Amino acid sequence: MAHQTVGHGGVGVLSGCPAAAAEPDPSCPIEITLAVLKGRWTPLVFGEFLSGERTYSELSRALPALSDKVLSERLAQLTSAGVLERRRTPGWPVRVTYELTERGRALVPVLAAMRHWGAEAIPS
Amino acid sequence: MAHQTVGHGGVGVLSGCPAAAAEPDPSCPIEITLAVLKGRWTPLVFGEFLSGERTYSELSRALPALSDKVLSERLAQLTSAGVLERRRTPGWPVRVTYELTERGRALVPVLAAMRHWGAEAIPS
Repeated sequence: MAHQTVGHGGVGVLSGCPAAAAEPDPSCPIEITLAVLKGRWTPLVFGEFLSGERTYSELSRALPALSDKVLSERLAQLTSAGVLERRRTPGWPVRVTYELTERGRALVPVLAAMRHWGAEAIPS
Repeated sequence: MAHQTVGHGGVGVLSGCPAAAAEPDPSCPIEITLAVLKGRWTPLVFGEFLSGERTYSELSRALPALSDKVLSERLAQLTSAGVLERRRTPGWPVRVTYELTERGRALVPVLAAMRHWGAEAIPS
């Protein structure tokens, strides 16, 4: 049977990700995106920002089963990836908020595509 | 500052993923998609099928640094997720091929969205 090519420019999807490499290249664009979303709770933490900025205590209340340690790690992960911005509002007490950056907002349609695919999962 | 809502139907992105749960729900559609793509080499193995069906030995040649153990695991993972179909062609020798299912082809635009976002990563 002849090899069939997938549409949607499929072959270009992995450009920048050499298959013959000794190991998966962390600079492969898909690996970059997966790394940002990596870890338990990351999508849920991200999801908290879909309706606007949040303080640490608001997040903590919204995700009651998430430990402080993991919440702090997830905020650091998403901030260092450029997805969230941490902002200190001067005054007393100092108010620290996190909100999506432009780059974080650009992740929303990516998660929407992932959600769409996952929602049609074949029951196994 | 008032909470701003993200466009693109952002709030619906995490529907089916309750934030107040004791732990992330594996039936959350985004978690389903992440689970399918989980693990080193998974995107690269998936990528091998973008231009058509493949035998095990073709995959092994195309991904020379990937061990037999991990390649077998990735093929099992993608097959049980409904992304790949394993087919035995009768004859001698029996020829075993893998190819993308319709559901696997539906994952291509999802990976394209992930690639697009990752390709614009801020150099850190």
